[in-house]
Amino acid sequence: MIKILHHTLDPASRFIRLILSEYEIDFELEEASHFKRSANLIEIEPLAILPILLDEKSQPIIGALAILHHIEENYQSKTISLFPKDAPSRAEMWRLYELIMGKFNDEISRYIIEEKIGKREQKLGSPDPAALRAAKYNLSEHEKYFAYLFATRKWLAGNHLSLADFALGAHLSSLDYLGNIDWAKMGESKNWYARIKSRPAFRLMLNDKVVGMPASQSYADLDF
Amino acid sequence: MIKILHHTLDPASRFIRLILSEYEIDFELEEASHFKRSANLIEIEPLAILPILLDEKSQPIIGALAILHHIEENYQSKTISLFPKDAPSRAEMWRLYELIMGKFNDEISRYIIEEKIGKREQKLGSPDPAALRAAKYNLSEHEKYFAYLFATRKWLAGNHLSLADFALGAHLSSLDYLGNIDWAKMGESKNWYARIKSRPAFRLMLNDKVVGMPASQSYADLDF
Repeated sequence: MIKILHHTLDPASRFIRLILSEYEIDFELEEASHFKRSANLIEIEPLAILPILLDEKSQPIIGALAILHHIEENYQSKTISLFPKDAPSRAEMWRLYELIMGKFNDEISRYIIEEKIGKREQKLGSPDPAALRAAKYNLSEHEKYFAYLFATRKWLAGNHLSLADFALGAHLSSLDYLGNIDWAKMGESKNWYARIKSRPAFRLMLNDKVVGMPASQSYADLDF
Repeated sequence: MIKILHHTLDPASRFIRLILSEYEIDFELEEASHFKRSANLIEIEPLAILPILLDEKSQPIIGALAILHHIEENYQSKTISLFPKDAPSRAEMWRLYELIMGKFNDEISRYIIEEKIGKREQKLGSPDPAALRAAKYNLSEHEKYFAYLFATRKWLAGNHLSLADFALGAHLSSLDYLGNIDWAKMGESKNWYARIKSRPAFRLMLNDKVVGMPASQSYADLDF
């Protein structure tokens, strides 16, 4: 069976868990920490990149893009594809995937998760309020953009569910766990998130618990 | 003909220019600035993402990942593919592509280019020495890792040239233009860079000039 080395609140790990669940591929999880450079991770990947997919078909597959392509090539679902069939939607999907895993991550998720989780795991003291404020401001800018897109589209890259939805869903769910999403300010994005949150693939993740750091009230609530 | 909206020192733009040249696909360039949010860019992409590919086959294709897939689907070269045929090398290519366009960019290139080019274009004063020092330190860490890989491989993802080589080449060439690479400290990476720099695709880029900001001595020198 596939095993995924992951960190509960790492958005890239969540993204891969969502894709596998959506494709109805069985897998088991093993927790690892890129912050603590845990032994089970460093033994496979000295750079401590997550997530990692382990199966009988190959060497360890490291990082979201590599895993994504490995899944498409080896475990393609018979019932669903998260790559849109039409070329313009595929291009739009990649644009948004890159935006979320790149800029959104760098300006928002990475800050918040490093400050709140990374420092805690490494016993580096409490989060830096200035970094959290900067991330909060950046989030409000990105929120406006996503709300603008969702005003005219059902899903992020157009009229069909795609990888891009799960990329954004993965990031927002980590931030929501940590209480960093103010849903009242999310406009159209809230309706989209309610739809994706209700999918079976997503619901599995709503049981996640980090020891000593309970999820925000909205996290597991489908009627948030 | 294909047109690429690019910024001369933007690594993602350079990456796409390199791929197109390596595939021997004709294209023309149009300069745009994500820092100045130039009108020719914002009219197409309000988020000012570069590069953008314009052709008759589609809507504008925005961002490196979307362009990469568009090229593979529409302009595949008959003589060369930068996607390795064997699955383990492809997985390794994606791991390194993500590392370079993600972590390497966030910790090094983005800092240096924003400080040296972004501030200059936006008239925001001189570079922050602390940011440049942090980037320099991060670069020395990444350099060690790449030198370690090149000690046992001809190309970055293994024994065949792949997208990963052009991703790293694009970043290093921007940093080299700005005088931020100390080649004496680059170990095995220098030999690899000498090889990739001599390819016809790469040599075209060595004529690049930014007005008022001449390239470092090593930039266009094949015997650096």
